[in-house]
Amino acid sequence: MYIEKINSPADLKHLSLEQLTTLSSEIRQILLNELSVNGGHVGPNLGMVEATIALHYVFNSPVDKLIFDVSHQTYTHKLLTGRRDAFIEHKVTGFSNPNESEHDFFTLGHTSTSISLSCGLVKARDLKQEKFNIVTLIGDGALSGGEAYEGLDNAATFKSNMIIIVNDNQMSIAENHGGLYQNLTALRESKGAEPCNIFKALGFDYQYLDQGNDLASLIKAFKAVKDIDHPIILHINTEKGKGYEPAITNKEHFHYSMPFDLKTGAPKIDLTKIENYNNLTGQLMIEKMKENPCLIGITSGTPMVFGFTAAEREKLGKQFVDVGIAEEHAVAFASGMAKGGGRPVYGVYGTFLQRTYDQLSQDLCINDNPAVLVVYACGVHGIPDVTHLGFFDIPFLSNIPNLVYLAPVYKEEYLAMLEWAIQQTTYPVAIRVPTNGVIPAPKAVDTDYGTLNKFQVNQTGSNVAIIAVGSFYTLGESIVKLYKEKSGIDATLINPRYLTGLDTALLDQLKEKHELIITLEDGVLDGGFGEKVARYYGTSEVKVMNYGIKKEFVDRYDVNELLAANRLTDKQVVEDILSFYY
Amino acid sequence: MYIEKINSPADLKHLSLEQLTTLSSEIRQILLNELSVNGGHVGPNLGMVEATIALHYVFNSPVDKLIFDVSHQTYTHKLLTGRRDAFIEHKVTGFSNPNESEHDFFTLGHTSTSISLSCGLVKARDLKQEKFNIVTLIGDGALSGGEAYEGLDNAATFKSNMIIIVNDNQMSIAENHGGLYQNLTALRESKGAEPCNIFKALGFDYQYLDQGNDLASLIKAFKAVKDIDHPIILHINTEKGKGYEPAITNKEHFHYSMPFDLKTGAPKIDLTKIENYNNLTGQLMIEKMKENPCLIGITSGTPMVFGFTAAEREKLGKQFVDVGIAEEHAVAFASGMAKGGGRPVYGVYGTFLQRTYDQLSQDLCINDNPAVLVVYACGVHGIPDVTHLGFFDIPFLSNIPNLVYLAPVYKEEYLAMLEWAIQQTTYPVAIRVPTNGVIPAPKAVDTDYGTLNKFQVNQTGSNVAIIAVGSFYTLGESIVKLYKEKSGIDATLINPRYLTGLDTALLDQLKEKHELIITLEDGVLDGGFGEKVARYYGTSEVKVMNYGIKKEFVDRYDVNELLAANRLTDKQVVEDILSFYY
Repeated sequence: MYIEKINSPADLKHLSLEQLTTLSSEIRQILLNELSVNGGHVGPNLGMVEATIALHYVFNSPVDKLIFDVSHQTYTHKLLTGRRDAFIEHKVTGFSNPNESEHDFFTLGHTSTSISLSCGLVKARDLKQEKFNIVTLIGDGALSGGEAYEGLDNAATFKSNMIIIVNDNQMSIAENHGGLYQNLTALRESKGAEPCNIFKALGFDYQYLDQGNDLASLIKAFKAVKDIDHPIILHINTEKGKGYEPAITNKEHFHYSMPFDLKTGAPKIDLTKIENYNNLTGQLMIEKMKENPCLIGITSGTPMVFGFTAAEREKLGKQFVDVGIAEEHAVAFASGMAKGGGRPVYGVYGTFLQRTYDQLSQDLCINDNPAVLVVYACGVHGIPDVTHLGFFDIPFLSNIPNLVYLAPVYKEEYLAMLEWAIQQTTYPVAIRVPTNGVIPAPKAVDTDYGTLNKFQVNQTGSNVAIIAVGSFYTLGESIVKLYKEKSGIDATLINPRYLTGLDTALLDQLKEKHELIITLEDGVLDGGFGEKVARYYGTSEVKVMNYGIKKEFVDRYDVNELLAANRLTDKQVVEDILSFYY
Repeated sequence: MYIEKINSPADLKHLSLEQLTTLSSEIRQILLNELSVNGGHVGPNLGMVEATIALHYVFNSPVDKLIFDVSHQTYTHKLLTGRRDAFIEHKVTGFSNPNESEHDFFTLGHTSTSISLSCGLVKARDLKQEKFNIVTLIGDGALSGGEAYEGLDNAATFKSNMIIIVNDNQMSIAENHGGLYQNLTALRESKGAEPCNIFKALGFDYQYLDQGNDLASLIKAFKAVKDIDHPIILHINTEKGKGYEPAITNKEHFHYSMPFDLKTGAPKIDLTKIENYNNLTGQLMIEKMKENPCLIGITSGTPMVFGFTAAEREKLGKQFVDVGIAEEHAVAFASGMAKGGGRPVYGVYGTFLQRTYDQLSQDLCINDNPAVLVVYACGVHGIPDVTHLGFFDIPFLSNIPNLVYLAPVYKEEYLAMLEWAIQQTTYPVAIRVPTNGVIPAPKAVDTDYGTLNKFQVNQTGSNVAIIAVGSFYTLGESIVKLYKEKSGIDATLINPRYLTGLDTALLDQLKEKHELIITLEDGVLDGGFGEKVARYYGTSEVKVMNYGIKKEFVDRYDVNELLAANRLTDKQVVEDILSFYY
């Protein structure tokens, strides 16, 4: 095996084309073995095996710098840069990471950022009067993001070496959406000769390579642009999922796959058959869309959030819009639609909603248009990669005026909130989808959430009141139970439901029989929900303990370890209560 | 005067071309009279007089919907839509505003949002099976913003009426920057015939009008696209500042001008000659740039933040970069540059920094690169328009891990912080520029801010401790003084300096001699600095009162009224302290 002898890019530079071809097969097999067991980004990596080998063959990393957009396609790069064994042992992160290797320059996982970051490297290099290649790889899907465009617009004005490789596999996570893509198609079909060329329009030199999975062609193309003295776009045509039939046939599913059977490609666990909040959302949406032709589902490149099957998506027609990876547009689009009398529901991961803070504030909330946001994967049970953390939604969303941010605990509560949000036309509403499983409600839930900031007292006790937000409500229940065992005292347990305001009448009333108020939130403490409660009680005799996550970036964390590190187990909190009293 | 008879767009539809031409002169005179007295967006409005008249002549507002990007060019639109007298009396806002008129559909003031908002109107119209024109006006400057591109990319895929007018006046606020602009130039020079056309590349139908200040040509062009059944770009060439020589000669200055002498165009107050934080920043930067060729000033379309003269900008050459209106790119670019060994300083208004929350988190702070941000116009003394409020920076910035956000009080302190930030290479650092005037420090200031979160006690007293952030430090001084008069007690006064962490040692120590801690911050309370202090003292005997701005959107507020409404006068706070004790 050649791969066994490659401990740095230097080790592949003396290989023949035939040997490199064998190497690409070996790498593909390693990828499939690893991904079928542990899951990961299958399609993007299979499609980039040859291009990555060719890059390391032609360029001199880390002197020459390779920057991968999103960096979910860096598995081959990791295998070639001294991380082979760590990769096989599942010890590397799924994204590029400067802490892992001198061949990585940024930790990145959100799309469309690579060109701007690279522009910075180019500028610094030129100021320092150094000479090396800066090579940026960005997929066609990422080109719909505004940040990529802003980067291109600036990059085109540079007067020095900058090589941008557009890895065109004709897919985003799902299929591409946007006017841009007909131009990429025209460029592919004309082998780059189409005169109306978005890259040339932005001022770039441009080259096209049709055989983006052919090592000889890639090496030739990379050699042709190496050491170039100006910015250039090298547009390469690759196949997502290359070399693995199931990933080619079902490109969307294999963009990121959970563990799968290597022979058949069948997922080891079929999530679509398990009740989950994606499916629940999709089913309610379909039902409501039948009643209301102006109800629309919006996604920005992650259509799976609604749990629709491909057939359902097709059937929804005009009532389902994928705007591509374009979160800013999605929010403004939803606001405009709500203003025009439509009922938009934008389903989005919390980590990506960050990309549209200003649109939430300006386009949506200043205008107070009644769009609905369904916010997924927030809290500790979200995504444990540092670039996809779900801890920051409460600080960035709940402090924007006019927005109503709801945190349901139960399945029926979530569905009732969503139904209410769709039906009302008074507020912009966001709903924080629970991430601790689908829990049925023990009793009937409210159907009207129009009386804002009304917390729900589910158990009335004394001394200690616990206000437990959303996914941490069950932690609240455990604490109440354990505290009862330890002290004999029934604590009060509250589901606040609203993250954007306080139930001050209730907070006042709690003072009568309680001396300690505890808040539990599945997010960072700084700027979060609990601090608002602490502020409210600032001058009262009541004491407040806020529990949540410490403000810091953590990567690939273990949920239980993270909870324990933040004193977020029932035992720890009860210990704290007991030591408060004694 | 024709303008006197126009109370709605219907009143101009029967005017002849000659009469409309006279009307345009009348409007231009009204604009100049008003703007020379009160200040405002001069150039953008003068350039749009004819186009706005023609729009209202051809289209049927408000059935047909006109959406203006940024909406700082809507003065003529306001004059023609029943707000003439209110405009003359300076009673309308400077931006479009649905509360003012049924002819306005959104409150907007940040650039590049109009296309996405309009896409939403288009989608809602089509779902409701209604028929009318949706006309979006966007300037060439705004096209560098990623949100505009995301909107274009989506809009081009629509199959129904959508008219996007690109108002190309060959200027952003300052001159344009970006590869895009060479394409616009090529399109203008070829009268729209250039085959490599960014709009066509995105999939649009396209028309070009060279005479964008000629009423007859505009009317003809608008009639030609009215009721079109698909999206189209109508690219019109206009002159910024049209009809007023000083605004044509000095386009950047007259983009937005303070009151000026109508005859000469000279500003009534020359801010460049008054010591201010823009000039101070620029001067320090120039000095430091001489020492360090890798130090770079970055702006995203607002070069005036550094207070450089045009000659200085020219002289800085490669050490000053205007990336155009592209805040996302600016932050990622700065991060990349810092990673590459450059020392980037990005000067930006706080309200626009909102546009790059995700880049701050992902591109900058996860990567922990030592870029420097200088954040202007934060707090109540920032900009009083609802779309430009400076209240929200503390919640959105200070809760991002790894960032160090500094709030200086004094001139020397600000300069020392900036100097430290530039020289250090450990942290991403943001500095909140004071907005309550340039105040000299009464004593020597620290030069090293590397020991994070060290608050400074400037007056040691007892009972009450006041932690007064940045621009509100002087309010803290007044309170201490007044409280001493009323109670005879010397309170403790603290300049916290750091907004991203607490000096817990000091907070613990304060408990000894104080029973009341007061925080004062020039920003919204929710998610802000004071709440962190309240959380910290949650279980202690010390009481906390947090003072700041209520979380809500306010428009064209009076500073003193806003302060009083939030109990932010020294008298009110002292009243509260006294009533706390008695």
